[in-house]
Amino acid sequence: MKLIKAEIIAIGDELLYGQIVDTNSHWISQELDLVGVKVVRKTTVGDNREDILAAFSEAERRADLILITGGLGPTQDDLTKALLAEYFGCGIVEVPEAVEAVTAFFKQRGREITPLNILQGHLPSCCTYVPNEVGTAPGMWFENNGVYWMSMPGVPHEMKKLMEDFVLPKLPSLFDLPVIYHKVIKTVGIGESWLADLIRAWENALPEHIRLAYLPSLGQVRLRLTAFGTDRKKLEQEVDAQIDLILPSIAEYVYGYDSESLESAIGNLLKNSGKTLALAESCTGGYISHLITSIAGSSAYFNGSVIPYHNQFKENILGVKGETLRTQGAVSEETVHEMAAGVRKLFGADFGLSSSGIAGPDGGSEEKPVGTVWIACSGEGFSEAKKLQLSRDRMLNIQVTGVAVLNLLRNCLIRNNK
Amino acid sequence: MKLIKAEIIAIGDELLYGQIVDTNSHWISQELDLVGVKVVRKTTVGDNREDILAAFSEAERRADLILITGGLGPTQDDLTKALLAEYFGCGIVEVPEAVEAVTAFFKQRGREITPLNILQGHLPSCCTYVPNEVGTAPGMWFENNGVYWMSMPGVPHEMKKLMEDFVLPKLPSLFDLPVIYHKVIKTVGIGESWLADLIRAWENALPEHIRLAYLPSLGQVRLRLTAFGTDRKKLEQEVDAQIDLILPSIAEYVYGYDSESLESAIGNLLKNSGKTLALAESCTGGYISHLITSIAGSSAYFNGSVIPYHNQFKENILGVKGETLRTQGAVSEETVHEMAAGVRKLFGADFGLSSSGIAGPDGGSEEKPVGTVWIACSGEGFSEAKKLQLSRDRMLNIQVTGVAVLNLLRNCLIRNNK
Repeated sequence: MKLIKAEIIAIGDELLYGQIVDTNSHWISQELDLVGVKVVRKTTVGDNREDILAAFSEAERRADLILITGGLGPTQDDLTKALLAEYFGCGIVEVPEAVEAVTAFFKQRGREITPLNILQGHLPSCCTYVPNEVGTAPGMWFENNGVYWMSMPGVPHEMKKLMEDFVLPKLPSLFDLPVIYHKVIKTVGIGESWLADLIRAWENALPEHIRLAYLPSLGQVRLRLTAFGTDRKKLEQEVDAQIDLILPSIAEYVYGYDSESLESAIGNLLKNSGKTLALAESCTGGYISHLITSIAGSSAYFNGSVIPYHNQFKENILGVKGETLRTQGAVSEETVHEMAAGVRKLFGADFGLSSSGIAGPDGGSEEKPVGTVWIACSGEGFSEAKKLQLSRDRMLNIQVTGVAVLNLLRNCLIRNNK
Repeated sequence: MKLIKAEIIAIGDELLYGQIVDTNSHWISQELDLVGVKVVRKTTVGDNREDILAAFSEAERRADLILITGGLGPTQDDLTKALLAEYFGCGIVEVPEAVEAVTAFFKQRGREITPLNILQGHLPSCCTYVPNEVGTAPGMWFENNGVYWMSMPGVPHEMKKLMEDFVLPKLPSLFDLPVIYHKVIKTVGIGESWLADLIRAWENALPEHIRLAYLPSLGQVRLRLTAFGTDRKKLEQEVDAQIDLILPSIAEYVYGYDSESLESAIGNLLKNSGKTLALAESCTGGYISHLITSIAGSSAYFNGSVIPYHNQFKENILGVKGETLRTQGAVSEETVHEMAAGVRKLFGADFGLSSSGIAGPDGGSEEKPVGTVWIACSGEGFSEAKKLQLSRDRMLNIQVTGVAVLNLLRNCLIRNNK
């Protein structure tokens, strides 16, 4: 099987001057990787004739598939369409279907079409017109000397729609691609190197055609299994069998698969068990509540939160004992237990969660340096607390504490559902 | 003055397969733009000898300055150092200073150094060793045929430190660069096109050497003024004079300059006036509290929040009248007034803020469709509410409401300080 090589060319001055981040190339890379096309280069050039033509001819020598984004606006500084016509030596002609589409696009939105926009329906005669249902600049498909080219707008959702509706479905008919199957195991509460130690024997025994990648992020590690072959059904079964083999060793860390987030996994656990939740967030200042309520439907299991940013509110609103605060301090095991119990009672919830710590960068002491955080989870007949020793970076401390609190709740939920 | 051209080469398979986003190239672009160096191309290649050497020779033909990131790890798949030595035709030699630095780096962290890491102190004999104080892979500086090359690790904070400490300060001695002065005016509460209408006459009358860019983001528009010349002091004065000219027309929308965020601007307003704040967040679910508490020192003016995710808690904890909820509903002007007043009282704060809305994607009605949001700000002797009609996108609705609430508070603060 021949390796299929792709090159991505992003066009636009705004990409070179750092005014916008090119998220398109990253997304395209991921999608091509998933179908077994190898991206060999990404190139970004400005709105400049010589630079764009040079990028075209360099790419043609290297790649079987060239994906171009940007430079398709109606104004004069956008050159991609004219230069593609020049590069392939063909003229630009009116494509009635394309003119109709752009006219309809404006009409639908109750806006007058301008002569400049009508010209967006004029295309190189050597391209295949690819309708863009969500914008005004059409996609253009070229085939030349065995190399396939697709030109797409730089607007991310327009590019994605053209890739998903046209380019990605077309690839299997153009190239002899391997069948690839991916499955991502999502873990929390264990560091990358500890996880690697736990699964080393299994990893080393994986068959040649199944590969493992560690993808770490804040407090979490994703394990991506990629299987290559010819029969998708068989690959799925093989990958699932491998996961069944390793799962008993890592089950306590696995919260979900593929694109599921920790907050949505927890939402499902709560929903399925009919339980509700309340939070008392001190050092995390609303961050965890925000994660939980970012999930649609979270009102089914989230009752509410209190953010008591001073001791008096921990006392008055949540019922933390004045003596506890005086003798143990706000950042202490006893305080987070009482905060979790208090907020649970206030909102009549099944579970109460709490956080209290020194987020930084200032405010630490010898005994409790910046980055000292206590968290707790309280429920019917139990309360569990945990101490974290984090960094001097305020935002990092907030985010890592958020993951730790969610994972503490997850463990409490699993134990209580047994 | 000759235009100085730069090219950025990012090296690493993980960039081509979409496993990580290349934020380095974007950051470097911005920094070079600020000092008047023009980035003419960004190239990403994998860990492959031929591809990397091709990228080197292509870049050398185009650029005066070549900045390379990545491929400097101690393992065999990292090729950058060996290929730079090969490209410039020199050997790799032990650099005692560099070996010492990497040894000290490990010792400081209480870790054993490995033979592989010691080799990170061996460098091409034709390069200038540039110490990396925050990592193990040194920077390497080359000068060849009038082109300057810098090779840096791909780890963002290591690259940034080398750029800030070494590359950026060095540029003025290498190239005849223009003096460039930027100032960013940060506005909130007005859309890009309305703002453009307001300042059109002023914009058209700007002198040739001062340029204006509109940089819109969620609910905010930044106006970037860039002045080109030879005398920095004079450019600063000219830009400030231009800002003085336009400020009276847009003052109500301007909350700060350059890198100041809306939440930190509001923090300063509160701190300077000695006032405190409390929030009742329903549809924003903790997002605004999170923004406010992400600012170090916010405990000086932030008392706390309640997130009452069900009507009973709006009633029990915040004292919203049951009748109001029954007759007007939770998403109503009267409810957000009562929520803001209630939370202000609960936390004994000078200002109370509230949000209540239908964040979506489900839960709307004919009368109150998804995206209907009410917000309020309450203080001594006043209460002000505002209705927003937003989209079907839950996260977008939360974020736009956050900006609107902060801006409502800003306006209340300014009016009350007069």
